[in-house]
Amino acid sequence: MTGRTTGPLGDVPADEMRAHLHRMADWVADYRDTIEDRAIAPRVRPGDVTARLAAGMPASGEPLERILHDLDAVVMPGIVHWGHPAFLGYFGSTSNGPALLGEIAAAALNVSAMTWKTSPAATELETVVLSWVREMVGIPSSFMGIVYDTASVATLHALAAAREVSGSSVRGRGIAGRADLPVLRVYASDQAHSSVEKAMVVLGLGEENVVRIPTDDAFRMDVGALRDAINDDVRRGTRPMAVVATVGTTSTASVDPVGEIAAVARAHDAWLHVDAAYGGAVAVLPESRSAMAGAELADSIVVNPHKWLFVPLDFSALFTRRPDVLRAVFALTPEYLRGDASGARDTSGGADAIDYMDYGIQLGRRFRALKAWMAFRAFGRDGIESRIREHCRLAALLAAWVESTPPFRLAAPQSMGIVCFRAAPPSMEPEECDALNEAVVDDVNATGAAYLTHTRLRDRTCIRVGIGNVLTTESHVATAWTRVQAAERQLRGAR
Amino acid sequence: MTGRTTGPLGDVPADEMRAHLHRMADWVADYRDTIEDRAIAPRVRPGDVTARLAAGMPASGEPLERILHDLDAVVMPGIVHWGHPAFLGYFGSTSNGPALLGEIAAAALNVSAMTWKTSPAATELETVVLSWVREMVGIPSSFMGIVYDTASVATLHALAAAREVSGSSVRGRGIAGRADLPVLRVYASDQAHSSVEKAMVVLGLGEENVVRIPTDDAFRMDVGALRDAINDDVRRGTRPMAVVATVGTTSTASVDPVGEIAAVARAHDAWLHVDAAYGGAVAVLPESRSAMAGAELADSIVVNPHKWLFVPLDFSALFTRRPDVLRAVFALTPEYLRGDASGARDTSGGADAIDYMDYGIQLGRRFRALKAWMAFRAFGRDGIESRIREHCRLAALLAAWVESTPPFRLAAPQSMGIVCFRAAPPSMEPEECDALNEAVVDDVNATGAAYLTHTRLRDRTCIRVGIGNVLTTESHVATAWTRVQAAERQLRGAR
Repeated sequence: MTGRTTGPLGDVPADEMRAHLHRMADWVADYRDTIEDRAIAPRVRPGDVTARLAAGMPASGEPLERILHDLDAVVMPGIVHWGHPAFLGYFGSTSNGPALLGEIAAAALNVSAMTWKTSPAATELETVVLSWVREMVGIPSSFMGIVYDTASVATLHALAAAREVSGSSVRGRGIAGRADLPVLRVYASDQAHSSVEKAMVVLGLGEENVVRIPTDDAFRMDVGALRDAINDDVRRGTRPMAVVATVGTTSTASVDPVGEIAAVARAHDAWLHVDAAYGGAVAVLPESRSAMAGAELADSIVVNPHKWLFVPLDFSALFTRRPDVLRAVFALTPEYLRGDASGARDTSGGADAIDYMDYGIQLGRRFRALKAWMAFRAFGRDGIESRIREHCRLAALLAAWVESTPPFRLAAPQSMGIVCFRAAPPSMEPEECDALNEAVVDDVNATGAAYLTHTRLRDRTCIRVGIGNVLTTESHVATAWTRVQAAERQLRGAR
Repeated sequence: MTGRTTGPLGDVPADEMRAHLHRMADWVADYRDTIEDRAIAPRVRPGDVTARLAAGMPASGEPLERILHDLDAVVMPGIVHWGHPAFLGYFGSTSNGPALLGEIAAAALNVSAMTWKTSPAATELETVVLSWVREMVGIPSSFMGIVYDTASVATLHALAAAREVSGSSVRGRGIAGRADLPVLRVYASDQAHSSVEKAMVVLGLGEENVVRIPTDDAFRMDVGALRDAINDDVRRGTRPMAVVATVGTTSTASVDPVGEIAAVARAHDAWLHVDAAYGGAVAVLPESRSAMAGAELADSIVVNPHKWLFVPLDFSALFTRRPDVLRAVFALTPEYLRGDASGARDTSGGADAIDYMDYGIQLGRRFRALKAWMAFRAFGRDGIESRIREHCRLAALLAAWVESTPPFRLAAPQSMGIVCFRAAPPSMEPEECDALNEAVVDDVNATGAAYLTHTRLRDRTCIRVGIGNVLTTESHVATAWTRVQAAERQLRGAR
């Protein structure tokens, strides 16, 4: 910083920092204003960005001007613009202005919400914001919430709780080398998220003990097959530890019959975890409230406001009606935190103080609630409803276009903001169609005007569109669709 | 937003958003300018913040002005100001201007660095920034790095890798119900972080299988005791899966003899994980390079730039010379990500593309590298060195003051930025002293002028000071020390 700091040991001087904050405000505003003019995916190859970065760390501080210059010159050419309204990968993007203001304030405060005492406002705002999410998506108030970074981590915690009640002293003794514990298995549909396998690997229960249950024509779990699988396993001596039902699968946003699955889980005393990471959001709509039907019977439910409730990365909410179990697995207060832990001292009346560190792996917990609080208040319940409803309308519209345009056809029923489809010219073998559809996605993405992904359904490659950005309008979807058709025509013509 | 958005379905209109970004720039600048005038810890009781928040989510969107008003009126009175230069809890605070600018830019971009393809710049910047951390703290270039949110999660990943090589098909079959796997045990000092227990709980290995090894007078692991403990366990038929050595323990910043521990671990084919989450940073100083001696023999090392390398929450770096093992545990590419995964396609020459999702639980990965890159460049290696050296000087100064001021005495050798001490008037029983020291901390914190924590060492309550904020100067430490002495005198006089 070459003499510009408050002495060589301090921070950027106040005046300079204020000026840079304003420069950054303009940078952000300019970025948002021009995002549609940008190619969504950059034309870079692996190593290109690195080649333009200094290999070694600078020996001496550099002026912020130079660093911000390199942000534009080196970093930005390697950015995929997830916030572009025609970025239709994954579930769209949750970038928005109000939440961004919340992120900025949270970054300036830089508190850690591990105990109530170290961050009363962050802790209480987390509780309040989670109660809003719970109300929006129709989860009973008997469920307690906690924020993690991702749904993968939330599901890991849920299955850790399920494991805890599967035998005695699991936390204390573990599960290795024990004759009193059988193999524990988890059941999820063949469309469920891969985080179930990752959680089972981490928990020491093994990837092979995730039993993938077949799905019906609409990619919903076949409950009869679930019942049969569990019965077979029980006869073999393994124990059904948990069932994971999905509300809004990753590929097609299909919704498992949660109520029926709950009955099966209950009959076997298995933990029911509902993965509503994406699909929980649609239950904000009165007309789609049924998507979460049966979820009230779950032991735990994950909903990701960072997927479709307009909260930017990262913010995943786990709700459980058995917080005592979660706490029994994770509460552990070392001496250096005891003075700040609520359990250790009289909280002088008033409400109970929650120390969220007692419900999870992480101690360092960013003030994530602030961005959610700002977005939820700025949009309001009506505003969130109307945006989600519009995304559903756009997805249905695209599905209608697909259905009326051979050789395209839907590869799955359109659900929520997700449309999966496939070009399947009658003259082409299925494998050729796979290659064609993959090439269409690549070609469209190469234009920079839209960004799609593909997925595999019933072993066939499909094009997948996810709509979830507040900036996405009918014209963006139409542009993407036009590009898809053009790419398909050109690729087919080139054969 | 009452008619202020780009239609009812969009985002905040561009002009309004630009104005609010500038307002937020001033809010942040004002906060930073006035942070020293604020009481560090607020006088709130549990429920106070909640009582001032709207109980329910607003039905309609609210103007940003009102929300930002409530940020000041409702949220701020419940904030503990971690960034205050006299906040001496934990390891101090890593707030700083350059990193804050990086957080703002990252929030605006809102990309997820799960695969190279979905975020080339975020992925490559992560690699580059990690190489800088590696060089700064003296980790060999044969170690590959990855960023997680917290050290707890990093240690979980390290021990998952250790578990994987402890038996066949651990990932696939898990560890439950297997006769071929013994109980797996982990060894760590009685001063090691509680994340070791949390990781062992999560991994299904059990809290009781963390063997806490006694420490010497300087709170360093007793290697003879480690050797004995492992030998005893091996005779009993359990397997030493891993040893965790700590460089900079949480209570006293003590440094285990890593080289000697490495020899013991190697003799038993146990994984060596070095928890240098805090202490790795001190090795930036040439005169303290020895703190990391022996770490080059480790299988994995965690260093938290968000503890003492001026990167705000959250940013924890795991380095491993066995990335193949980490990948063998965690790589799992579902169909809906296959198109964006590097492994699935020709990366068209150039450097290999890393998909960081293959090395961890999380898929959603914020662009954390940007804030680190900005802070490291703005301060430079010299600037980071001089700041860390100053923090060590301030800690040594406080230790000298303590030593020359009865009835205070050091409770542990001063190390790095950490000073643990205790008022022990000769007339008082040890239990009375415990209560006295706890009360001193509470009284000092109640003044709002400084923030300390306490810890327990050898079953006695001590006052703990952690210095790590770039804004902290000698006068802040002196103020805290004056407050401590005043509180002790007053409390003792009141008996």
